[in-house]
Amino acid sequence: MRVHNFSAGPAAIPLEILEQAQAELCDWQGSGMSVLEVSHRGKDFVACAAHAEELMRQVLGVPDNYRVLFLQGGATGQFAAVPMNLSDPGEVAAFLNTGQWSGKAIKAALAQGVEVQVVADEDASNYTTVPTPGSFTIDPGTRYLHYTPNETIGGVEFGYVPDPGDTVPLVADFSSSLLSEPLEVNRFGLIYAGAQKNMGPAGLTLVIVCDDLLGHARPETPDIFNYAKMAASDSMLNTPPTFGIYLLGLTLEWIIARGGLEAMAVRNRVKADLLYSAIDSSRLYHNPVAPDARSRMNVVFTLSDPDQGPGSGSGPGPDPDQELTDAFVAGAAEAGLVNLKGHRSVGGIRASLYNALELEDVEVLVTFMAEFEAAHC
Amino acid sequence: MRVHNFSAGPAAIPLEILEQAQAELCDWQGSGMSVLEVSHRGKDFVACAAHAEELMRQVLGVPDNYRVLFLQGGATGQFAAVPMNLSDPGEVAAFLNTGQWSGKAIKAALAQGVEVQVVADEDASNYTTVPTPGSFTIDPGTRYLHYTPNETIGGVEFGYVPDPGDTVPLVADFSSSLLSEPLEVNRFGLIYAGAQKNMGPAGLTLVIVCDDLLGHARPETPDIFNYAKMAASDSMLNTPPTFGIYLLGLTLEWIIARGGLEAMAVRNRVKADLLYSAIDSSRLYHNPVAPDARSRMNVVFTLSDPDQGPGSGSGPGPDPDQELTDAFVAGAAEAGLVNLKGHRSVGGIRASLYNALELEDVEVLVTFMAEFEAAHC
Repeated sequence: MRVHNFSAGPAAIPLEILEQAQAELCDWQGSGMSVLEVSHRGKDFVACAAHAEELMRQVLGVPDNYRVLFLQGGATGQFAAVPMNLSDPGEVAAFLNTGQWSGKAIKAALAQGVEVQVVADEDASNYTTVPTPGSFTIDPGTRYLHYTPNETIGGVEFGYVPDPGDTVPLVADFSSSLLSEPLEVNRFGLIYAGAQKNMGPAGLTLVIVCDDLLGHARPETPDIFNYAKMAASDSMLNTPPTFGIYLLGLTLEWIIARGGLEAMAVRNRVKADLLYSAIDSSRLYHNPVAPDARSRMNVVFTLSDPDQGPGSGSGPGPDPDQELTDAFVAGAAEAGLVNLKGHRSVGGIRASLYNALELEDVEVLVTFMAEFEAAHC
Repeated sequence: MRVHNFSAGPAAIPLEILEQAQAELCDWQGSGMSVLEVSHRGKDFVACAAHAEELMRQVLGVPDNYRVLFLQGGATGQFAAVPMNLSDPGEVAAFLNTGQWSGKAIKAALAQGVEVQVVADEDASNYTTVPTPGSFTIDPGTRYLHYTPNETIGGVEFGYVPDPGDTVPLVADFSSSLLSEPLEVNRFGLIYAGAQKNMGPAGLTLVIVCDDLLGHARPETPDIFNYAKMAASDSMLNTPPTFGIYLLGLTLEWIIARGGLEAMAVRNRVKADLLYSAIDSSRLYHNPVAPDARSRMNVVFTLSDPDQGPGSGSGPGPDPDQELTDAFVAGAAEAGLVNLKGHRSVGGIRASLYNALELEDVEVLVTFMAEFEAAHC
């Protein structure tokens, strides 16, 4: 029996996609081979990769002057690749720091000798907010402005696209929210994302980069991180993660069949609203994130004994109760609601509501939450 | 119908493995989830990765003072990662140049500022030979000696392990021959290999490294390439290519069930011998590689009109006949023998005989070769 899988990543994949991959796993397109067994340079797989790229361009509305690259190494790899491709040592890059993932990107840029300017840091709110639009300024000579549209651990999401000014390219780690809603790609110089949330399996990294930014990589940039070389070889400078590219194609077909990114945006908004209102109307569950910064993708909450503090719902609430939290995770798993444990660095509960999650999954979760609250309060 | 798949990589996978992956693709171990959908940090996947590592240690006989790492980026990534981890700019590394893949490793080391000493270069034979044992010397201060045990494009393989002396660690790109026969791991400082030949799907890179070599990475080494950091986090510093690790585990179980690496060595020797003797006894087919350097994994040959030059078999033979070559590839494909086209840089024919290939696949090939020769000569 399929469970309700709230994993933060690698994350749920629509059953239709898994079933198609399963059906053709030993014989892909009547070739007598698995898609896992074919050369990346053979015409069948070249067509498969071109199809995935074409669908990505169509679904996301990628302009012609942007390259779509299929790489490896995840966002963590890109934390190093971005400064290697877009800056020389000693040059300035600006960062918005909204939590653990922006923090990692900053640390990696420092390791590449970048002069990092953190132009907004949400430390004062303990990373439960995003910067107010217009509250930061970027020097014109800055090589790029980097931000993290969605912080998977903190459950914090930008409701807007930051404005880096006319001359500074915007770089975004879209690992956990790409394809969850429409995006104006031309507002970005570079977008990167691991596939394992909304796009497919772990091991595929998507990079969408404006032509203007190509060709400036430092000489020691490893080939697999060199955007210009990868663009010139259609991402086949070396063997790409073929199964991931194949599954990305299936995922994009699924998104199109479901009505595209507009439909995904509605679907994801409705799911998140349902869960946040369950939290806000409870005395047991607490979400610490500012209302305008709440993530649609990763809903974090804690459980606190209502008798130990003010009954709230919204806001950090009283100290979390570990015993209640453990009971919640165990009870949820018994009810088929799995992977709800918060990130090990913060604890609590995290329900990730990527594209593959159906409204029904969230309905089952909020029903369980209400029953659990009734039983424990 | 399954075809006979001689792809150089991504390459054939044993049907039993594909069928097991297929059977459990939508419900892994009764979890109600695909292995593609589970967190890499969940206990089920952590156990899966630990199992793959344990089997690798068992099958290959990896000593306790070596780490087994599951990385991304392929051998091409390692071409940069090795110098980043084992040398500082300006330090000396020695290389044996036996063809295109050693050449790429050399170029990438140069890009990392390494002082490259090519202590043996098989250019005089047009890369159809390997260096004679003992024909090269390594300065004691050299950081490492790098070589390519099997050249996938040239079809050249070392029949021995080079001796770098007592103080210099040996580094080997085992992408196309790891797990094809037993190996004395303790003769190496570092072994790396892409998985897509003998170990599973594209997108997983295996690194086996001696503890002594950890902890010397350059400060700017990207985290995903930093062996010490990856070792300290059990290869889970970031999200690893989970499906590849899972398939590696299945592949190792398959190898064990087939009798381990001793059995693989026999199996691979018999297959290669059969094909080489078909070539050597023909007037149409020619393999240019020196007998002691012929690859068991990648058998390359050309077709030349016997009336245009000396009938041979062994040796480069007269100029290849492109028309005959095309007819061979087309006819073979009709007979269910696929992916036989040589690498685009060299042309001709290449039959890759990795572990997954059965003797029967090669028997069908040599039968076709004989029929083709009879029909065209």
